[in-house]
Amino acid sequence: MVEPHKWVYAFDEGDGSNKKLLGGKGANLCEMTQMGLRVPPGFVVTTKACLSTLEHAQQEFPAALVDQVHEHIAKLERATGRKFGDADNPLLVSVRSGSAISMPGMMDTILNLGLNETTLPGLIAQNSNERFVYDAYRRFIQLFGKVAMGVADAYFDEPFEKVKKRVGVSLDVELTAADLKEISRIFLDVVHMQAGRPFPEDVYEQLNYAIRAVFNSWMGKRAVDYRRQFNVTTDVANGTAVNICTMVFGNMGNDSATGVGFTRNPATGEDIMFGEYLTNAQGEDVVAGIRTPKPVAQMAEEMPEMYQQLEQLRGKLERHYREVQDFEYTIEKGTLYCLQTRNGKMNATARVRTAVEMANQGLITRDEALLRADPEQLDQLLHPRLVPSHQGTPIATGLPASPGAATGHVVFDADRAELLAKSGERLILVREETKPDDIHGFFAAEGVLTSRGGKTSHAAVVARGMGKPCVAGAEGIMVDVRTREANVGDRVLHEGDVITIDGGTGEVYAGQVPTQPAEFTNELRTLLDWADQVAKLNVFANADTPEAAKSARELGAKGIGLCRTERMFNAQERLPLVLDMILAEGSEQRQQALDRLLPIQRDDFKALFSIMSPYPVTVRLLDPPIHEFLPSERKLEQELESLHQLRGSLEGMSTLMQSLRTMSPEAISDETLPAFLREGGPEYVDQVIARKRMMLHKVRELSEVNPMLGHRGVRLGITYPEIYQMQIRAVLQATADCIRDGIDVHTEIMVPQVCTAQELLRVSAYVDDIKQEVEQAYGVDVNFQFGTMIEVVRACMRARSLAEVAEFFSFGTNDLTQAVFSFSREDAENKFLPFYNDNLILQDNPFEVLDVKGLGQLINTTVAWGREVRPDLTVGICGEQGGHPASIQFCHHAGLNYVSCSPLRVPIARLAAAQARLRESEYDSDR
Amino acid sequence: MVEPHKWVYAFDEGDGSNKKLLGGKGANLCEMTQMGLRVPPGFVVTTKACLSTLEHAQQEFPAALVDQVHEHIAKLERATGRKFGDADNPLLVSVRSGSAISMPGMMDTILNLGLNETTLPGLIAQNSNERFVYDAYRRFIQLFGKVAMGVADAYFDEPFEKVKKRVGVSLDVELTAADLKEISRIFLDVVHMQAGRPFPEDVYEQLNYAIRAVFNSWMGKRAVDYRRQFNVTTDVANGTAVNICTMVFGNMGNDSATGVGFTRNPATGEDIMFGEYLTNAQGEDVVAGIRTPKPVAQMAEEMPEMYQQLEQLRGKLERHYREVQDFEYTIEKGTLYCLQTRNGKMNATARVRTAVEMANQGLITRDEALLRADPEQLDQLLHPRLVPSHQGTPIATGLPASPGAATGHVVFDADRAELLAKSGERLILVREETKPDDIHGFFAAEGVLTSRGGKTSHAAVVARGMGKPCVAGAEGIMVDVRTREANVGDRVLHEGDVITIDGGTGEVYAGQVPTQPAEFTNELRTLLDWADQVAKLNVFANADTPEAAKSARELGAKGIGLCRTERMFNAQERLPLVLDMILAEGSEQRQQALDRLLPIQRDDFKALFSIMSPYPVTVRLLDPPIHEFLPSERKLEQELESLHQLRGSLEGMSTLMQSLRTMSPEAISDETLPAFLREGGPEYVDQVIARKRMMLHKVRELSEVNPMLGHRGVRLGITYPEIYQMQIRAVLQATADCIRDGIDVHTEIMVPQVCTAQELLRVSAYVDDIKQEVEQAYGVDVNFQFGTMIEVVRACMRARSLAEVAEFFSFGTNDLTQAVFSFSREDAENKFLPFYNDNLILQDNPFEVLDVKGLGQLINTTVAWGREVRPDLTVGICGEQGGHPASIQFCHHAGLNYVSCSPLRVPIARLAAAQARLRESEYDSDR
Repeated sequence: MVEPHKWVYAFDEGDGSNKKLLGGKGANLCEMTQMGLRVPPGFVVTTKACLSTLEHAQQEFPAALVDQVHEHIAKLERATGRKFGDADNPLLVSVRSGSAISMPGMMDTILNLGLNETTLPGLIAQNSNERFVYDAYRRFIQLFGKVAMGVADAYFDEPFEKVKKRVGVSLDVELTAADLKEISRIFLDVVHMQAGRPFPEDVYEQLNYAIRAVFNSWMGKRAVDYRRQFNVTTDVANGTAVNICTMVFGNMGNDSATGVGFTRNPATGEDIMFGEYLTNAQGEDVVAGIRTPKPVAQMAEEMPEMYQQLEQLRGKLERHYREVQDFEYTIEKGTLYCLQTRNGKMNATARVRTAVEMANQGLITRDEALLRADPEQLDQLLHPRLVPSHQGTPIATGLPASPGAATGHVVFDADRAELLAKSGERLILVREETKPDDIHGFFAAEGVLTSRGGKTSHAAVVARGMGKPCVAGAEGIMVDVRTREANVGDRVLHEGDVITIDGGTGEVYAGQVPTQPAEFTNELRTLLDWADQVAKLNVFANADTPEAAKSARELGAKGIGLCRTERMFNAQERLPLVLDMILAEGSEQRQQALDRLLPIQRDDFKALFSIMSPYPVTVRLLDPPIHEFLPSERKLEQELESLHQLRGSLEGMSTLMQSLRTMSPEAISDETLPAFLREGGPEYVDQVIARKRMMLHKVRELSEVNPMLGHRGVRLGITYPEIYQMQIRAVLQATADCIRDGIDVHTEIMVPQVCTAQELLRVSAYVDDIKQEVEQAYGVDVNFQFGTMIEVVRACMRARSLAEVAEFFSFGTNDLTQAVFSFSREDAENKFLPFYNDNLILQDNPFEVLDVKGLGQLINTTVAWGREVRPDLTVGICGEQGGHPASIQFCHHAGLNYVSCSPLRVPIARLAAAQARLRESEYDSDR
Repeated sequence: MVEPHKWVYAFDEGDGSNKKLLGGKGANLCEMTQMGLRVPPGFVVTTKACLSTLEHAQQEFPAALVDQVHEHIAKLERATGRKFGDADNPLLVSVRSGSAISMPGMMDTILNLGLNETTLPGLIAQNSNERFVYDAYRRFIQLFGKVAMGVADAYFDEPFEKVKKRVGVSLDVELTAADLKEISRIFLDVVHMQAGRPFPEDVYEQLNYAIRAVFNSWMGKRAVDYRRQFNVTTDVANGTAVNICTMVFGNMGNDSATGVGFTRNPATGEDIMFGEYLTNAQGEDVVAGIRTPKPVAQMAEEMPEMYQQLEQLRGKLERHYREVQDFEYTIEKGTLYCLQTRNGKMNATARVRTAVEMANQGLITRDEALLRADPEQLDQLLHPRLVPSHQGTPIATGLPASPGAATGHVVFDADRAELLAKSGERLILVREETKPDDIHGFFAAEGVLTSRGGKTSHAAVVARGMGKPCVAGAEGIMVDVRTREANVGDRVLHEGDVITIDGGTGEVYAGQVPTQPAEFTNELRTLLDWADQVAKLNVFANADTPEAAKSARELGAKGIGLCRTERMFNAQERLPLVLDMILAEGSEQRQQALDRLLPIQRDDFKALFSIMSPYPVTVRLLDPPIHEFLPSERKLEQELESLHQLRGSLEGMSTLMQSLRTMSPEAISDETLPAFLREGGPEYVDQVIARKRMMLHKVRELSEVNPMLGHRGVRLGITYPEIYQMQIRAVLQATADCIRDGIDVHTEIMVPQVCTAQELLRVSAYVDDIKQEVEQAYGVDVNFQFGTMIEVVRACMRARSLAEVAEFFSFGTNDLTQAVFSFSREDAENKFLPFYNDNLILQDNPFEVLDVKGLGQLINTTVAWGREVRPDLTVGICGEQGGHPASIQFCHHAGLNYVSCSPLRVPIARLAAAQARLRESEYDSDR
């Protein structure tokens, strides 16, 4: 029960769960007091008192507040045997603000309130340290003057420096007690002059000033800015409380000390006390840097009994709070006081380990352990990263496009990268932007850096898929492929120079910056096993290669939700075959090229199926427009120009060589002729020119105004049926092969870019024919699922009719997001999307975080319609957002069966899926 | 009641409404007989008999059929007093097929069945014309031989030609009775030899053969192909009936005649009998071309009594059928027989006039009149077209992109077009494709012809907007702008050559082909007024210029639903200002350019508002991406290269001129210096180069991968607020100006490409500020509506939240179709969409016909959600499909308030809107 006109609560009476009334700090002090920890006596002025004061036109304190404060001071006096304002045994207090939510830096703490000319001698007597007391006094005057009376620091700093100069010292610690005494006097004058009234000698007046200052700080610029920046509504943080607490002193001799501690190691999670302390010292000493604090383990030898008490305190705190605590304490003449506690901030390693161990120790449940870890934070454990203590200064910053850190030699094109990688060099591929024909460069490099493109650019998507670090769109870098150089500000990077990139922050460093490896710990493994038991959503991976599939499986993927077959086309040795297919004139030539691709694709699929057995593998048929496999028009034109020049030169050389040879045939052997002459000279170049011309012709023929919305996916599959037929044949042959080898295989064939059931029916007809053909050839029954990507809005609208044909739906949320927003992701991320996010026109980048309000609405409708027709319809998503916790939460509530994401996001997704289940009741679908 | 085993119905007993059983023709003959018209006696063998025969394994006639036929022949004998197969007074019959739906050309009519060696003399005696009878006989043998006995025409043609050669005639009509008699004998032999059995002498056998032949024709190739092509399901057309009718003869003397007639003039609609007749003749004579038929009016003098009867027949037919009839008759010895009637096919002029006049005459209701006209057919009346009788052969064919015909001199670029048009030349602009910077060429030309692009290409859309004819994507034409030539097959078109284009058919002719003007008749005006009274949907127009607005108003638009302000930017004299705005560095320079555009836009709006008062005008703020106003990168690069060359040459010339001038100053006057030297020579070119370079830089900066999904619409409006603010200021100042001038103005401001309410709120904030500013400056209250285009799918999903800000929604179905299908319309129409339509993967081109199943679903949902929040939300569509009748029907049922279309589609839309209302009950929403 909250009494209406009770403005003040002693620590031993306040309700520890009522943060709204008492603020976070105040509630905690009450709780600790009441759970029997030794907390210096004190009391809390409520947030209601704060609001009541601020709402009053003249900002008067509510009636009775002052009286209640005085009563509680009297209570403190009784508890401590000291007296507020007393000359001999003065009661000193600290005054701190504390609102319901933590707002660091909102207001300073005022220590030693109650000091004045009268009480000084008493404190000196108690502390036996005149210098300390005057130092505390001058600090109190300045801080109080500033906070409570509005005198700027500059007015104190100037006379302070003058005194230092006069007495000839440069460091504050060199000032004597007498110097500090003099400074205190000067400071009192400064306050009087600048504030227009004397520094309050009356301790009750000091207290009123301080309380009012804390109240006012609630509407101060710092606090208001903080609340705005972090979107704190005044609804959850209504005013600030004021905590008034008896001062205790850790500098009262060698049986006194001050320290901070963690109940477990916040860096490793190890279950031992962690922290530092100083004997005969105040917190101030640590800040001033006079003495180096000692590790807490040393206390076991130095003050064994106190260490024992500290261990007990640690146990009590953990048992009570059931979470690692970050606490502060002071030992005053052999008595341990606990001054503060809060949940400890930890890195991912410690977070996971403490959660698992606390669950194993029975302190918390497994469900609670699952809720402790932040899925996004797991990312730290899955990639190498820069050691936190490194000293590097970035030379450029881009977007953190694929997490992890990598060091290597700069290389500017994919061919060079492949060549250099063979000699064992570690490389960073640096490009303006990447295209599918750079793919072998990704394989060769440790990491990728681009100067254009966003987080969903080709470079970013491919790198994430491979789990390689990538920094994208580092605009400060100007790449010149021809000269094999890049300009970064004044600096020039040459091929071979060493750089380090951090794909988690987007930073780029010159030279090597030390990294630490990924840590997929046993505790993480345990936690994720628990997650799988709780989660309703399955987590699959998007994986196109056997390597990616292996990695996905190790990270706990329960299937492949998206295998992009075109990625298989991109491998260096296959691209010529793909080009033959594209340049084919008529379907017969095309078929020949496809016949050569067939066994290659079949082997790919067999490898994937074997690795993933017995989990499902979803193969998506060719999706991108064909021109993506071709170089750009401009590049071809440039190449042709160079080739023509070469052709001319070669012809001249050839003539020359021939006449030379006629003149002295023995002198010019075949060995001395340049390689290109041996390959046929001008005629050879003519062949190359002819092929390039065909490519240029094809590029122009295929060029599209909006390739994203062009001739791709099933539209290609239907207009050039041979391509899909080859792919389907490869998939089903690989399936049959596996079945014959006794491998348990679950194949799913998925059609991209579908907008009408007619399209699916056509492909389904190919599938039926080829199934029959394969079953006959292999003599086994080939079973599989047939389904569709949902990435075109019309497919959503026609969900009922598609569900009659498709056995599963997989939302391709990358393309669907583009279609729903009419945003081309490359254009949007380079042009207006950052502005939209900065100005809160859109809360998030919808290509990273699934847009629940728009796209989510569409997905919910589509799933409902699809399941009307086919109640057991399997539904998943396989877009980038599939690895994002908030998106996973949405997918859980949308009733999806699985999410599919990059292999390295799988652990994050598994935890997020479990949390979605555990937090079901909290979900606000209208968020 | 249909009796189960009754296979034959006499004309006086068959149910005239049962076309399914009796076929269309048979039902009509029964109906005419029973309404008291004199029809030669006859009977119908039912479609059921046909099906029953075809379903039988040996294709036997159903039991009793032959008996029933014989019974009915006997009935005919009783009615006519003649006898089937009788030598003296033979009964002859015609045999015709007739299924439930009309399938022209499915089977030939067999006349004079019953002729044989026995009955010939009797017929000769009756006709007193031996030659005629033998001619009929040899025709009967050949047709019967072919149709009923399967003997190919070639076997008849060869001996026929031989006889003609022998007797020395070249025309059939020159053959004598004896010649024809000989030919008949030869034909009988041909049949015997080729069919392997003699020509049936027995008349009942003839009849059985003929009935079977008609039955079989139902599954013949011609009929099956016809049904496939026109998507006739066998469900609606189940078998064919056989009509057997007593022959009557119009060649029995001068009191006999044969003729065809329309109850009203099918070319003009005039309410007078129309048609031709021949006295003493059979229908065959007309076909053979021996005599020229006479206009029916002449009968009034020649056979006044018969004419009287014919007029009565005409009246009876129209009163009964309540529709213009196309009928056939024969007068046999002063007796008028009506042989057939059907609804008359008419051109649009007649269709409209007869509908209106029949309603005014009380023959039909106004609602029926509205349903009579085909909205699409009205298009004929709204554009000039080629005279139907023209003899031209097209030299190329493209897509009918904007209706109407135009003749003019070929011109290959917009600048030349503008220049030549000033001298009064009529021009056809011929381009590979058009871009916004060709717009002045559209104004200058009579019509536009492109060799690339589809029906929704820039050329097509702009031409339709202006109501100018356009043929797009005529791929046979290769345009070479530099040489001012185009290749069309072997032919070369030079600048200045005259061509004619027909935008209604897509045909292109060399030279002038005569055209006839548009006819917006009084009857059409009346019909459309009636339509407006019935329709629930309002019809608005998309119009960007005062000219278009005037035209829209004349055509009955009740407002402007889409005024594309960017079209205003495109005018030749404004483009430099727009370029200044685009090339501006920073917002201050941009503001200066905008300040100069402001008064121009304001004047535009004021003109529009004045023309449309008191109807609403919806102004859409800038929509396209800015780079659309710039030339292409390639063009700029080429221009720059040429300019650099020019620069070099000029420098040389300038030096030369200068030195010449020094040598003999009086010889080289300023007049003799070329103009460009006077303009500053190389320095002037340098200025041009500098500006072009800036443009090239900007073009590269602005280039987008998918411009359709790029930085455009409100995204531009928010990131460069000055542009929208200028436009809003221009709109509101024009509104205020009108109000001050006493003009009743209804302004609507519409924001394009919106995807979230935040965007609308931002623009709404500009609007509020500017409204206040304008109201103060003009001293009037400025009222208007504020709304949004719905052309992004996310806007649909967020309809509830948008409706909180927007007072109206306008579906931009061009862009929305692209987003829903993920089809880029230019790419789709050039690549796979034709394939999709041909293969029925998609029934229609969704850019022409609103996709009811997909997009329609989305629109319905959006409207419902929007009106949940704002029940009085005004909703319309302003895409291309807004002028398409089926789409209008959908819009009516979707509860929209208006459709907005090109001005010249307004009449079509008005009629379609009325029909949608009248056909409400027939609408199948799941079509």
